[in-house]
Amino acid sequence: MSYFMIEKMEEVKLMNFEKKMKIFQEDLKKKFDVAFISPGLNFYYLTGLSPASTLERLFLLVVPADGNLVIIAPKLYQNELKSSWISNIVYWEDKDDPYEILKIFMANLERKTGNLLIEDSMPSLILINIMKYIGQYRLEPISTVISKFRIIKNEEDLKCMERAADIVDRVFYDLIEKNLEGKTEIDIATLIDQLMRNFGAEGTSFETIVASGANGANPHHTPGNRKLQKGDLVILDYGARYQGYCSDITRTIAIGHVSDNEKKVYEIVKDAQENAFRSVKAGVKAKEVDYSARKVIERCGYGAFFFHRTGHGIGLDAHEEPYITSTNERILENGMVFTIEPGIYLSGKFGVRIEDDVLVKKTGERLTKAKRELVVL
Amino acid sequence: MSYFMIEKMEEVKLMNFEKKMKIFQEDLKKKFDVAFISPGLNFYYLTGLSPASTLERLFLLVVPADGNLVIIAPKLYQNELKSSWISNIVYWEDKDDPYEILKIFMANLERKTGNLLIEDSMPSLILINIMKYIGQYRLEPISTVISKFRIIKNEEDLKCMERAADIVDRVFYDLIEKNLEGKTEIDIATLIDQLMRNFGAEGTSFETIVASGANGANPHHTPGNRKLQKGDLVILDYGARYQGYCSDITRTIAIGHVSDNEKKVYEIVKDAQENAFRSVKAGVKAKEVDYSARKVIERCGYGAFFFHRTGHGIGLDAHEEPYITSTNERILENGMVFTIEPGIYLSGKFGVRIEDDVLVKKTGERLTKAKRELVVL
Repeated sequence: MSYFMIEKMEEVKLMNFEKKMKIFQEDLKKKFDVAFISPGLNFYYLTGLSPASTLERLFLLVVPADGNLVIIAPKLYQNELKSSWISNIVYWEDKDDPYEILKIFMANLERKTGNLLIEDSMPSLILINIMKYIGQYRLEPISTVISKFRIIKNEEDLKCMERAADIVDRVFYDLIEKNLEGKTEIDIATLIDQLMRNFGAEGTSFETIVASGANGANPHHTPGNRKLQKGDLVILDYGARYQGYCSDITRTIAIGHVSDNEKKVYEIVKDAQENAFRSVKAGVKAKEVDYSARKVIERCGYGAFFFHRTGHGIGLDAHEEPYITSTNERILENGMVFTIEPGIYLSGKFGVRIEDDVLVKKTGERLTKAKRELVVL
Repeated sequence: MSYFMIEKMEEVKLMNFEKKMKIFQEDLKKKFDVAFISPGLNFYYLTGLSPASTLERLFLLVVPADGNLVIIAPKLYQNELKSSWISNIVYWEDKDDPYEILKIFMANLERKTGNLLIEDSMPSLILINIMKYIGQYRLEPISTVISKFRIIKNEEDLKCMERAADIVDRVFYDLIEKNLEGKTEIDIATLIDQLMRNFGAEGTSFETIVASGANGANPHHTPGNRKLQKGDLVILDYGARYQGYCSDITRTIAIGHVSDNEKKVYEIVKDAQENAFRSVKAGVKAKEVDYSARKVIERCGYGAFFFHRTGHGIGLDAHEEPYITSTNERILENGMVFTIEPGIYLSGKFGVRIEDDVLVKKTGERLTKAKRELVVL
């Protein structure tokens, strides 16, 4: 995934990253010696850099609690890193052993409490290699520290997220002007991805889901060769990425006509989504939002057919904190953004899901605004 | 990445997977208690299943050296796993703690040598969590065991790889019929991806590279908004995926006209690639192939501008063993497939790279066959 690369970083943005890094380092000090951050969303969050690195070549941002940052990078990326605001970069070539560089760095560390922070998405291959070279440490995933910063979106983050949300809304309105009957799920997924790019997305925030007819009963269905036909309900679940930030929307539409039962189930899901949305405000718990959706569906007798959480936080990651589950006691705060996406899945028959991205303020505010009334094409 | 999902597995394929798994388990016994395999290419190689799982939900294939396989999966994937030939699946819901299931499994293991095999691409978050629950083990990346199986392609693998190679050839011939001048790198990358799908690819095997003019001097350039203009050399590096298997091709083309110097550099790279190709046969070392490319470029005085390895193995992974580096002593065997992709990169000016996928037999055999003579559009 190569989401966004700041080619020439503006002064303001640069200061932003230096500031973020400083706050992170201050926090790191409380418990850890060093953080090891492989390329990914936290790397981007802290540096503005998003190198498209490969699994087998070590590419690492090393952040000590005290002292200077260093990036260990394959020489291959020298050009790409020219504009980096981090000047301390050790390049290695294919004939070198990059873990030796790390070993030397660690041997020279003054601080030795034995606690390391590790990028969540770092491939285990790299972590195992690191451990072989530097010995035993107590490891902690970086999300335990960094998510408290990332969970609150600032104005700049929100500008990007609003734009990403606007893109998926436009795609929806464009899509329902087209004739989708007879097209395969894959056709439509490809079309959605293309439309998102046309409207300014750098890419998708996850693999687009198009689930038609009985496939809709599988919440994470992979689009296949099934053709959309009259009488289908079709779940469209997709997201755009803008300057690294994600949106995520789901709408369920009907082809040709809709049965009374399908219509009934649709309205239950829509009410559940609306009820959860209305429960959002700073100060309530995540689980209360989950409950607000769940109780509507349970009351109507479909509780057993809504078997996933109500939503997930969203930002640089398509899935991040806060998770909207039945057990999450976390109190919602201003600036948090998450999805609300209840669904009902009737195996062998059909599924319905409706999803919006919601920002927490005094009340909730929908970032995705495409209409939720059932569209019959 | 969701490459390929066998929806209804044929009898033959099913036997194939059961056989592969048995061979793997036999080998596992030599040293390990268990292998933990998160979704990805090894998961697919051994099971034919490629669930599109998420980072934060535990989805694990547990292969004990003795005893029965088990899959620990979020309940969300129940439908997707219905056709699985592995019947022992423990589903968990968002309210459960899936690591407790793993803990119980490990407590009941009879074999306790203390060695664990871990999927290379498993996110560190999951590995750290696993370790917290099951305690200390000696960890080894799964590639150290499984690559000796995956490195030799059988007839079925090769059928898929030939098809994937054929797709990228067709895309090249299609592309050079078009007018590319004035289009941005992103436009062309999008077009290439679309063409690959049109010709039957499930997707790309990596992020498509289009690097024009001076951008070509960066081997891993991310396509940007630069427009192709007369006098540009343009590097096109892309790959298709077919039934999970990858191809990877690079061609460098010229827009409008080409200078004498560019033409000279182009011919050096082409000769280097050809020379390396001719050196391929079962029995020679990987480093000899690297040397065969490198010496042509060095002899012409451009040694310093070819600063990456000559190639990498390819199969289910776009990058896998054998790596064609200056130090790899591995002896090439029948059925191995790798890329040969020398390049010359002149910072601030331009770059040239030519790449084919080559199968080892008595001699080498190119899977990608698109013409290598310089095309001037």
